[in-house]
Amino acid sequence: MFPTTDTLVQPLRKVLDKFSLVRSATEAICKPLAIEDYIPQPIVDVSPPKWHLAHSTWFFEIFVLKTFYPGYKAFDPVYNELFNSYYNTIGNRTARNRRGFLSRPTVAEVYAYRAHVNEHVAKLESFITEKNEQEICTLIETGCQHEQQHQELLITDLKYILSCNIIRPTYHTVSIPDQTHTIKSAFLPVSEGMYQIGYAGDEFCFDNELGVHQVFLTEFRIQNRLVTNGEYMEFMADGGYKDFRLWLSEGWDLVNKEQWQHPLYWEQKDGEWYEFSLAGEHKVNKQAPVCHVSFFEAAAYAAWAGKRLLTEFEWEVAARLYNPELKVQNSQDHWIFQPVTTSENQPACQQLFGETWQWTNSAYLPYPGFAIAEGALGEYNGKFMMNQMILRGSSCATPYNHMRHTYRNFFPANAQWQFSGIRLAE
Amino acid sequence: MFPTTDTLVQPLRKVLDKFSLVRSATEAICKPLAIEDYIPQPIVDVSPPKWHLAHSTWFFEIFVLKTFYPGYKAFDPVYNELFNSYYNTIGNRTARNRRGFLSRPTVAEVYAYRAHVNEHVAKLESFITEKNEQEICTLIETGCQHEQQHQELLITDLKYILSCNIIRPTYHTVSIPDQTHTIKSAFLPVSEGMYQIGYAGDEFCFDNELGVHQVFLTEFRIQNRLVTNGEYMEFMADGGYKDFRLWLSEGWDLVNKEQWQHPLYWEQKDGEWYEFSLAGEHKVNKQAPVCHVSFFEAAAYAAWAGKRLLTEFEWEVAARLYNPELKVQNSQDHWIFQPVTTSENQPACQQLFGETWQWTNSAYLPYPGFAIAEGALGEYNGKFMMNQMILRGSSCATPYNHMRHTYRNFFPANAQWQFSGIRLAE
Amino acid sequence: MFPTTDTLVQPLRKVLDKFSLVRSATEAICKPLAIEDYIPQPIVDVSPPKWHLAHSTWFFEIFVLKTFYPGYKAFDPVYNELFNSYYNTIGNRTARNRRGFLSRPTVAEVYAYRAHVNEHVAKLESFITEKNEQEICTLIETGCQHEQQHQELLITDLKYILSCNIIRPTYHTVSIPDQTHTIKSAFLPVSEGMYQIGYAGDEFCFDNELGVHQVFLTEFRIQNRLVTNGEYMEFMADGGYKDFRLWLSEGWDLVNKEQWQHPLYWEQKDGEWYEFSLAGEHKVNKQAPVCHVSFFEAAAYAAWAGKRLLTEFEWEVAARLYNPELKVQNSQDHWIFQPVTTSENQPACQQLFGETWQWTNSAYLPYPGFAIAEGALGEYNGKFMMNQMILRGSSCATPYNHMRHTYRNFFPANAQWQFSGIRLAE
Amino acid sequence: MFPTTDTLVQPLRKVLDKFSLVRSATEAICKPLAIEDYIPQPIVDVSPPKWHLAHSTWFFEIFVLKTFYPGYKAFDPVYNELFNSYYNTIGNRTARNRRGFLSRPTVAEVYAYRAHVNEHVAKLESFITEKNEQEICTLIETGCQHEQQHQELLITDLKYILSCNIIRPTYHTVSIPDQTHTIKSAFLPVSEGMYQIGYAGDEFCFDNELGVHQVFLTEFRIQNRLVTNGEYMEFMADGGYKDFRLWLSEGWDLVNKEQWQHPLYWEQKDGEWYEFSLAGEHKVNKQAPVCHVSFFEAAAYAAWAGKRLLTEFEWEVAARLYNPELKVQNSQDHWIFQPVTTSENQPACQQLFGETWQWTNSAYLPYPGFAIAEGALGEYNGKFMMNQMILRGSSCATPYNHMRHTYRNFFPANAQWQFSGIRLAE
Repeated sequence: MFPTTDTLVQPLRKVLDKFSLVRSATEAICKPLAIEDYIPQPIVDVSPPKWHLAHSTWFFEIFVLKTFYPGYKAFDPVYNELFNSYYNTIGNRTARNRRGFLSRPTVAEVYAYRAHVNEHVAKLESFITEKNEQEICTLIETGCQHEQQHQELLITDLKYILSCNIIRPTYHTVSIPDQTHTIKSAFLPVSEGMYQIGYAGDEFCFDNELGVHQVFLTEFRIQNRLVTNGEYMEFMADGGYKDFRLWLSEGWDLVNKEQWQHPLYWEQKDGEWYEFSLAGEHKVNKQAPVCHVSFFEAAAYAAWAGKRLLTEFEWEVAARLYNPELKVQNSQDHWIFQPVTTSENQPACQQLFGETWQWTNSAYLPYPGFAIAEGALGEYNGKFMMNQMILRGSSCATPYNHMRHTYRNFFPANAQWQFSGIRLAE
Repeated sequence: MFPTTDTLVQPLRKVLDKFSLVRSATEAICKPLAIEDYIPQPIVDVSPPKWHLAHSTWFFEIFVLKTFYPGYKAFDPVYNELFNSYYNTIGNRTARNRRGFLSRPTVAEVYAYRAHVNEHVAKLESFITEKNEQEICTLIETGCQHEQQHQELLITDLKYILSCNIIRPTYHTVSIPDQTHTIKSAFLPVSEGMYQIGYAGDEFCFDNELGVHQVFLTEFRIQNRLVTNGEYMEFMADGGYKDFRLWLSEGWDLVNKEQWQHPLYWEQKDGEWYEFSLAGEHKVNKQAPVCHVSFFEAAAYAAWAGKRLLTEFEWEVAARLYNPELKVQNSQDHWIFQPVTTSENQPACQQLFGETWQWTNSAYLPYPGFAIAEGALGEYNGKFMMNQMILRGSSCATPYNHMRHTYRNFFPANAQWQFSGIRLAE
Repeated sequence: MFPTTDTLVQPLRKVLDKFSLVRSATEAICKPLAIEDYIPQPIVDVSPPKWHLAHSTWFFEIFVLKTFYPGYKAFDPVYNELFNSYYNTIGNRTARNRRGFLSRPTVAEVYAYRAHVNEHVAKLESFITEKNEQEICTLIETGCQHEQQHQELLITDLKYILSCNIIRPTYHTVSIPDQTHTIKSAFLPVSEGMYQIGYAGDEFCFDNELGVHQVFLTEFRIQNRLVTNGEYMEFMADGGYKDFRLWLSEGWDLVNKEQWQHPLYWEQKDGEWYEFSLAGEHKVNKQAPVCHVSFFEAAAYAAWAGKRLLTEFEWEVAARLYNPELKVQNSQDHWIFQPVTTSENQPACQQLFGETWQWTNSAYLPYPGFAIAEGALGEYNGKFMMNQMILRGSSCATPYNHMRHTYRNFFPANAQWQFSGIRLAE
Repeated sequence: MFPTTDTLVQPLRKVLDKFSLVRSATEAICKPLAIEDYIPQPIVDVSPPKWHLAHSTWFFEIFVLKTFYPGYKAFDPVYNELFNSYYNTIGNRTARNRRGFLSRPTVAEVYAYRAHVNEHVAKLESFITEKNEQEICTLIETGCQHEQQHQELLITDLKYILSCNIIRPTYHTVSIPDQTHTIKSAFLPVSEGMYQIGYAGDEFCFDNELGVHQVFLTEFRIQNRLVTNGEYMEFMADGGYKDFRLWLSEGWDLVNKEQWQHPLYWEQKDGEWYEFSLAGEHKVNKQAPVCHVSFFEAAAYAAWAGKRLLTEFEWEVAARLYNPELKVQNSQDHWIFQPVTTSENQPACQQLFGETWQWTNSAYLPYPGFAIAEGALGEYNGKFMMNQMILRGSSCATPYNHMRHTYRNFFPANAQWQFSGIRLAE
């Protein structure tokens, strides 16, 4: 069975409770939007908020209701083609770069679509049998996990959309907290040995976190916090973007072609660096972690610092060791969607979760024994295992109950628009 | 002075009346739209409706109010950059291909912008002097003409936007009239001689319609109506899109690259041709004029028919001769924005105005004595005189009081999304 | 009959003499080349010299020998596909942008191909009949004219190829003559009236020079010489490449995209302008005509100078008036392939022929009554009548007996690699 | 020290002998070429043979002679810029996609360049000191290894160049041997355990083969031979190129965009598959290994076969186990540059070396402890560790003494023009 471990068993009731919470959370994210904000797609990587709302709903309609709700009538049959993302198994779909061309259905219609699907999923209890309950639960659980991924994408995409506008619209007006200190950078040891990698718990995980397997690691040391904006400014001031020796060949080509000079969303005015955030434009805080850097920039920074990035295996092992309970320190500030500095009374190794994703020097490849599921869900992860780099941890835009030590996020090495940062190793 | 003939004198009152009518007409066109329809830009040629509404307003703010309204305060200074189209003189502007990325200002804000500008223009009477009245009148008149051009673009762009959606939203629900007959194609003579070309009246014209000059024409004959869908289907059925001998070299490359097989918006289902119109999808009417063809298709059709296209000079002379009063026959059907067939009791040469623009075999070049105006308005026409072909007449999307015998419309030879059709000569 | 006037009658003997001279002249141009120089195609506009040698030969094989030489056996049947330029009628061909990928046939084989075809054409006298002699003559004459066009292209393309190499190889070592004076710029009058345009003689002309027709011109004045390098430097120094008001919109986009700052082949070192010529690199001579400018640059220069370019009709009329005998002044220097300054004892209007082609402000369009020939030769000219501008006169790379008052050369407005310059009008 | 293990010590004499052999071998490869064959660059991946000859010489001039030959005078200083490949440290260079634009220096001049450098390298013995001998030896050894890499590229690039020509020139006329049998496919076991990876010998290796480290592998089984053309045809016949489920997402996009239907160089005529080889065109032999497939095709084939590709670690361990002596079976046929079938009296696991490179499912990433060398040679390998997949083994175009169990070849996943094939695992 695709996305869960074999031992996951849960009653439908509990899953439906989660479903209800997740669905509401998505809409809560969209509360501050004007209708107009739901439409644009400025780059192909970014999807319109309307599309996220509809596509995450489509997932439940296609994979759950169509199969398990007797006599289910699609809200609108054409939505199948409109809101399919990349599932070739399911049939035609809107080309990814054309999502921003769709003015209809209207936003109101999409919310009606959501309500229609929510209502029917809620009624599924009447139709379960002993035989299919577990399958239904798994599919709804998967749909919730999928929707949580889109919650994070909603934030990242919305930030990009608003940033394209010289008006600089704000999403929220909560002020970014003062951050005048950070802990001193240090490197914490992890000893040589055989380690187990992959998800071995009894709750949900994605197929790419399996199979569980052994990896031998030599001793290494992991940085106790993320690289800060202030440190990254030193790299910039030292000519980091001008020294080809620090860059991978493909990254150096990009630096020149795209004229990269700083992290995405930064701008210099009168000698001061400003960044665009969901609260509008403000000065870059030197204590906060650097964010919105590509893998190429992360790797160049590491080379400049005389360090390196972790492998995803090192990261997983160190995170289990130094933050076994998945503690997120800035929980009170989560809704500002902005990474913040370290705290004094925290674990030795901070910011593993909840601030920025951390680029690793591991390519996105299958684990030993990885098997692609039958049917459409088999297209979820496996087919993207090419020319992408692994990010580990989670970010300030990741839903709280969507974090695992074994979680494998992945993006192409040039991607900047995610909340992605840098942690070093030596 | 740029866009008017020297003799044009009019009181501000009359111009403000026109201003009021034109401004309302633009908003009337947008009545049926959902907010979402105002946003997308599926191809670079097409602008979002919101942009048309704002840009035509910007024109009055920048060229009229900023100069002539004492102490005028811009509605929002950033709109200058957001809604400048291509006037380098005026400063920065949103790149043309990024107009669809702007979710803000909201549509409501744009309507407020329109109201603000309308209100101030209406008050201009208090500030005119004998010295500046004529200049103000000319600029408002130009702004009205400019806005009427954008009214037509609103229609053409909206049609393209809605057509991108497999939902096939409709703009109106008026049914397309029955059209079971058309007049027989015939060729009407125009005799050899010296003719005057260009606008010599005493109302508004664009700078590209000047200077008035003499042209010597040999005898020719002009088709008495537009080429019909039925005739164009014969061209298609006869392999018109597969015979390189009919095509200009650049056109043939496009046929192959873009896989052109039929006019834009046509689709074949079960052996029948359908077209998308603002009333939705319906069968192609064989009596109606073919529309949404590029210059390349028009020229290939003419070659196939053993005829040729007119030059713009021939068209102007013949139109003056055969329709001196600019008569439009389908006036009652105008709001369906769909070209219709000929009528029995009409001039010998029909459909010169009000159905489709007519591609000529003339490149867009300056007339003898053409002079570019000083300042920003000098960028209106002259700088586009390269790699564009002239279209003459007007279309079912052209406002009624925006037609002249001398009007020079122009688009690149590959453009299909305008209401452009074919009239032959021999 | 395609490319000649109806009255052209000539005996085969005379045509074969010309054939022999033209064929030798082509090979004489290639004398200084290393085998390696025959191969590269650095941009799609430029063809490898080997290709020119073979394609001009292919023309005679396909259009003459295949039809009129009884039992003619192709030198190598595959050459038909390899060396067809753009004749769809003739079948497949090497894509234009792939001509530089052909290492074979070797250069020696191409010369053998030429010898083979020459030999067979020379023997055609044995096979002529009264009925076909005139057709054969016309086709050979056309092939000679075609080959002379390729002689000029050989020079222009070779210059481009050698210029790509930082070694800066030289084609010849003749030194460019000293040029310390030029005549003062003046504008010579041509009076208003009806003029005949097009070729009305009894020798060869291309189909695009027909039909002969009347054009009415208002009075104008033509510059008595070409614009000089020195004058063009003033335009550059005055910010000509930085002032958008001087440029057509499409030209301004190119200036920014391609970073145009000066004519092609110019380079600034230590404050001095140098140019690459077929004699290597040397200082730009301020008295010599500016060369290798695009139409956009010519038009921008004219706007800066407060003048305009001529139309092709004005040029033709003025050239007949001021240089009725097609006099070329720098004939002794012709083989340096470099335009030179004016002379004292020359016609009032100098440099009409033999220095640089002169961009006109006329688009390449058919003359009234222009008819495309049947068969493959019909593809010679007509299908290119789109998005190209007319150049008139001839250049220092044009063969002497390949000049006519009515000759219509044409290139896209962005082309710089031809020997193209500027003559103003007012 | 960059490219060798610490323990490598060798006298200069021995290295110079190798130098002499390697340099001659390169020129032997070029014997059959016409001068014209040295010039074209049909795609950016392919370099002109002339460039390979010159660049491999440049390497010795820059890294050896310039430093260690007292008073060395460059053969031609401009060659430094012309023939630098990608060493930013060394200064400007010819853009990679412009190598085919260089007609000069001539081929004869490049051979003279080679002779000049050979002569000076041979004289180095007079100048060595105890202190620098080892460094000189290492640099010459590296230059020889580098040149051997270019020997293989010469073959692959030449094959591509000749294939672009419909003439289908042949490089050699040795006939491809009959191949009527192959051994039955079987999977050979490798047991679970900790294995050492990386080069631990005392001869030359590249920096990317270091550091030596431990890897834990679970049990797996390796295919005893390469996948054959016949087997690959079954995949094709079964719709392998039409079933998206078999493909990585990026690969599926390529299949559609590039219209991939078969390995590079294959063509179907009258129902039979033919391939282009350096001996010309001939029927595809079903027993021979499939070659010129991309990683995407290899992965899709494996998915279709219900197997998978090896990781590079698995490959290295299995190759050491089953072919510890680097035996190449088709040595007598090596100069045909065409992979051939298995033999009866051979190791259990055949074709590990000498037929086709074998795509692994490992991305090109640094080994633990990998360190980039100081200076220009540091650009040799490390900066390409992004978006490339590892190939292991060697091919029929690889020089014999240029094979190691630990050799890491790498190309982008879409590359087809290398001699790359498929070996499965389970």
